[in-house]
Amino acid sequence: MMKFETYGDYAARTRASFDRQAAMRSMGIRIDDLAPGELWLSMPFNEGFTQQHGFLHAGVITSAMDTAAGFAAYTLMPEEAGVLTVELKSSFLAPARGQRFNFHARVLKPGRTLIFTEAVATAIDGENPREIARMTATMMVVQGRAGVTG
Amino acid sequence: MMKFETYGDYAARTRASFDRQAAMRSMGIRIDDLAPGELWLSMPFNEGFTQQHGFLHAGVITSAMDTAAGFAAYTLMPEEAGVLTVELKSSFLAPARGQRFNFHARVLKPGRTLIFTEAVATAIDGENPREIARMTATMMVVQGRAGVTG
Amino acid sequence: MMKFETYGDYAARTRASFDRQAAMRSMGIRIDDLAPGELWLSMPFNEGFTQQHGFLHAGVITSAMDTAAGFAAYTLMPEEAGVLTVELKSSFLAPARGQRFNFHARVLKPGRTLIFTEAVATAIDGENPREIARMTATMMVVQGRAGVTG
Amino acid sequence: MMKFETYGDYAARTRASFDRQAAMRSMGIRIDDLAPGELWLSMPFNEGFTQQHGFLHAGVITSAMDTAAGFAAYTLMPEEAGVLTVELKSSFLAPARGQRFNFHARVLKPGRTLIFTEAVATAIDGENPREIARMTATMMVVQGRAGVTG
Repeated sequence: MMKFETYGDYAARTRASFDRQAAMRSMGIRIDDLAPGELWLSMPFNEGFTQQHGFLHAGVITSAMDTAAGFAAYTLMPEEAGVLTVELKSSFLAPARGQRFNFHARVLKPGRTLIFTEAVATAIDGENPREIARMTATMMVVQGRAGVTG
Repeated sequence: MMKFETYGDYAARTRASFDRQAAMRSMGIRIDDLAPGELWLSMPFNEGFTQQHGFLHAGVITSAMDTAAGFAAYTLMPEEAGVLTVELKSSFLAPARGQRFNFHARVLKPGRTLIFTEAVATAIDGENPREIARMTATMMVVQGRAGVTG
Repeated sequence: MMKFETYGDYAARTRASFDRQAAMRSMGIRIDDLAPGELWLSMPFNEGFTQQHGFLHAGVITSAMDTAAGFAAYTLMPEEAGVLTVELKSSFLAPARGQRFNFHARVLKPGRTLIFTEAVATAIDGENPREIARMTATMMVVQGRAGVTG
Repeated sequence: MMKFETYGDYAARTRASFDRQAAMRSMGIRIDDLAPGELWLSMPFNEGFTQQHGFLHAGVITSAMDTAAGFAAYTLMPEEAGVLTVELKSSFLAPARGQRFNFHARVLKPGRTLIFTEAVATAIDGENPREIARMTATMMVVQGRAGVTG
């Protein structure tokens, strides 16, 4: 396991920035836990964010994995920096069927400008957790906050 | 330009399936137009789906591009088939700043099992349209509707 | 760890198919080991496959990861099936500097039609192994061997 | 069409850097043409770079698309800069069957640090050109030449 360097009270800063994401609030997604270079989110099943067959929408799963990965990267950034998603790729391994969804992201490789990340989505269907999606994403460290897309 | 084959009233079928996507309704995304192998969606800026800097969330942009691409593929599918997103990759070219967002998807290559697609997201900021994101995605044709993730 | 089902002498079949890949021979890449759903390749540094700064070319690293992932998938396929790469995404975490390169691929999720895979490339530079690249790829199971792209 | 800014004799600089890619020479790939933000490569069929069914290896196609895209980006870079592939995603639309292969790359969006690119691979099989693969890739502008993976 990599040992990551952090700056100041990274945890409070990360939670505060997450709380400014209206999209996460609207989708009912919240932080379960965080650590240097890692973040855990969860979301109860939400009928308002399903696709045509009643499962959670692939874009919503991607939204949660993107946010998890972006803030996992953010935990390692200097105090004045912002985070931007350069690109992401999601693979959908199984139908998003379940009562609850967990999202775990981690930093694969930190850098001064770019941070490589990975995320996994798990559905809890009754007793059984099942991996339903995986993402890799490149995050950019933006000094100042101009031009940040999140 | 490729010439695509369709089945029955593909347009009505596509609109009906889109209307069953609660996620699109919640995000305020609607169909502007469609054609064989192509689909146009749009979305007014929505404060409820922003990230921490007030721009539209990258995951929401991806949700719209994914849906546009999925239904562009769906326009070419047999009547009893469903569509599943196998994987997608989005690149975020510019901040998602604007009053309105357009999403255009098209089929790059149809197939009996897999359909390759591409989508482009454009922000309308005042007078100026600006390309903000691009996606490529692989869609799967599912016979019957079991196991569809959308 | 997932437990995977195999068919007949999957190891001999995998090695025989690998031996028909002229590209691997030309690049000096060989199988180090294999197991159900997993494959290890290695390649000594080869000046003939460098980019403009003398490091191993990103496309060559991708070729090795693609082949590792394709044959990791192949170990789980029925005897008469062939394997096709639907799509792949590689991230390049660090410069490909080293005397030797290792490639490990594994199946994330097997399926009757599609198999999701992941691969990691490591450079051995003196004493130190260093992760230099990661890939996720979707592989297709093709019955008969027509239309196979590898 | 975007109008791109270039620096000094970008064409000579691009050709000179391409000529230092031993991998392109080994695979028999050469520059057909270039323009600001665009590059065309071609490759005759080469039995030494096939996969197990005798078609061109997906990794070799990716190598050519990656190089085309990297140098398309490079045409827009300042004189002292180098180019690095951050990540790439390739989709394989059809089997790589043909006597000759063309690769066209273009810059989607230039930037001071990151340049977004796209590439298309076409096989010439008898009379018929056929699109066989597509790639999107993120390229990084590296000041000085340290740490370049290209």
